[in-house]
Amino acid sequence: MSNNTNNGNNGNSIRRHTITALLDNQPGVLARVVGLISGRGYNIESLNVGPTQDPTVSRLTMVVPGNDHVLVQVTKQLDKQVDVIKVTDLTKEPFLNRECILVKIAASRKDRSSIIELMDVFGGDIVSAQADALVVQLVGEQDRIADFLNLAKPFRILDVSRSGVIAMAKE
Amino acid sequence: MSNNTNNGNNGNSIRRHTITALLDNQPGVLARVVGLISGRGYNIESLNVGPTQDPTVSRLTMVVPGNDHVLVQVTKQLDKQVDVIKVTDLTKEPFLNRECILVKIAASRKDRSSIIELMDVFGGDIVSAQADALVVQLVGEQDRIADFLNLAKPFRILDVSRSGVIAMAKE
Repeated sequence: MSNNTNNGNNGNSIRRHTITALLDNQPGVLARVVGLISGRGYNIESLNVGPTQDPTVSRLTMVVPGNDHVLVQVTKQLDKQVDVIKVTDLTKEPFLNRECILVKIAASRKDRSSIIELMDVFGGDIVSAQADALVVQLVGEQDRIADFLNLAKPFRILDVSRSGVIAMAKE
Repeated sequence: MSNNTNNGNNGNSIRRHTITALLDNQPGVLARVVGLISGRGYNIESLNVGPTQDPTVSRLTMVVPGNDHVLVQVTKQLDKQVDVIKVTDLTKEPFLNRECILVKIAASRKDRSSIIELMDVFGGDIVSAQADALVVQLVGEQDRIADFLNLAKPFRILDVSRSGVIAMAKE
């Protein structure tokens, strides 16, 4: 088990932290938050930000790989910013997560039915069909999206657009 | 028609531009891109960034309200950055767009069936049911997401997590 980097909980193992933050909806705030994370050399695996029901507040969700100790420091630093209203690292509690992807897959007549079968298995939708390609839409937990992209590899993937993970505490 | 700010095409009317960019997947690149937009005082309505099939490349999609002339300048400036591989303003061509949201709605016994009905109309899913709340997942075009959030307003919305728009040229 010592080489399993995902489930260790001694604080030193690297795992993907899913962090949400409520931000003042002002130009410059997102740049500052992103700069603060990447200025420390952490790569942001995925990030999204969008409006909330309160027009003065945006909500950000990001996935940052790192060890627990370090991510505690990062969230504390974020929390200190005046235009950051609240930061939560969801990783230690049960949380819902979803990602949405659009994938354009080359679809020769021969491949077409295999792609449609794969979409049926994953509960995705074909949102655009062209002579030589299909665009599929899939929404699901991040593991499921990863599984799909793995299984889609044998086909020729022409374009991918991923929303990044959105998340919410279950409580 | 003169007060319709969304469909004018004289270049001076404000509309929501959906821009995608391929970026080098390095710490600091996202901060620079976001800083460049917000440094000019433009608010980014939604933004997301995530991995592509090529581990050295990330893909960013953002919605920025502004007039056509100005957004041309913004995309040109982005395109000049060495770590920005390609920028496309999709707004002038047919494109697919999707957004995914998770919404936690207070659900008294009285409201529960109305919420479930609303989800049926929009083709959403209930992904978590608690004693006094439901968490719903919906994926669709940005207009449809906006319609749903409008119709959900009479209920008490406890939490919203939005992925922001992802997009892909139709061609």
